[in-house]
Amino acid sequence: MDKLEYYRQCIKTLLKMQSSYPSNSGDIESQLIFDQESDHYLWIDVGWVDLEYIYSCFLHFDIKDGKIWIQRNRTETDIAQVLVEMGVPPEDIVLGLHPPYKRPYTGYGMPQLEKISIE
Amino acid sequence: MDKLEYYRQCIKTLLKMQSSYPSNSGDIESQLIFDQESDHYLWIDVGWVDLEYIYSCFLHFDIKDGKIWIQRNRTETDIAQVLVEMGVPPEDIVLGLHPPYKRPYTGYGMPQLEKISIE
Repeated sequence: MDKLEYYRQCIKTLLKMQSSYPSNSGDIESQLIFDQESDHYLWIDVGWVDLEYIYSCFLHFDIKDGKIWIQRNRTETDIAQVLVEMGVPPEDIVLGLHPPYKRPYTGYGMPQLEKISIE
Repeated sequence: MDKLEYYRQCIKTLLKMQSSYPSNSGDIESQLIFDQESDHYLWIDVGWVDLEYIYSCFLHFDIKDGKIWIQRNRTETDIAQVLVEMGVPPEDIVLGLHPPYKRPYTGYGMPQLEKISIE
């Protein structure tokens, strides 16, 4: 299987696994959002519990320049570690959640074409 | 054009229009997320401004049972009104943001198969 296709499968499997835990209660819809054309993948819970509106994005991945970006993780799982266990090399995982200056020290990847501004 | 296809075009046009206003500054990416298989459509801004992580979903639409659901609107635009001006009948717009008990009084649509629990 092509590398990118494998990464897409990993992300989708992970989102399905994570979103399968039952939500609290009420009229909550767990949405798995797969934009395969632009490579955005999300899990969002939407709905009402009594008089409270729930709108929570738990996980958001992108694939950019051959790397998986973790843009959001509101789960208790170390998602980057799970991706590594699935066979994704750490240098192909970018922790979008960490500020750009920290990324070289995370043990994970860097954006492929990061702009370095010299002032 | 088929009704649902027209609704999809309206939503995508609206998302493109709304997200085209320039964002504040920093390294912010405006993402338009179109899951055309499950009919989820979002605009999310992601990135860093100095040491602050920005993750904001401004707009989220779904199409369910032939109706457009507005699940999130963090813009200053009356999105439902704009959809009406584009030719979507009010009864085909569901304000997900309003609690189910309020929806009959909004002047907009109701979910097609709303469960009514009699206790």
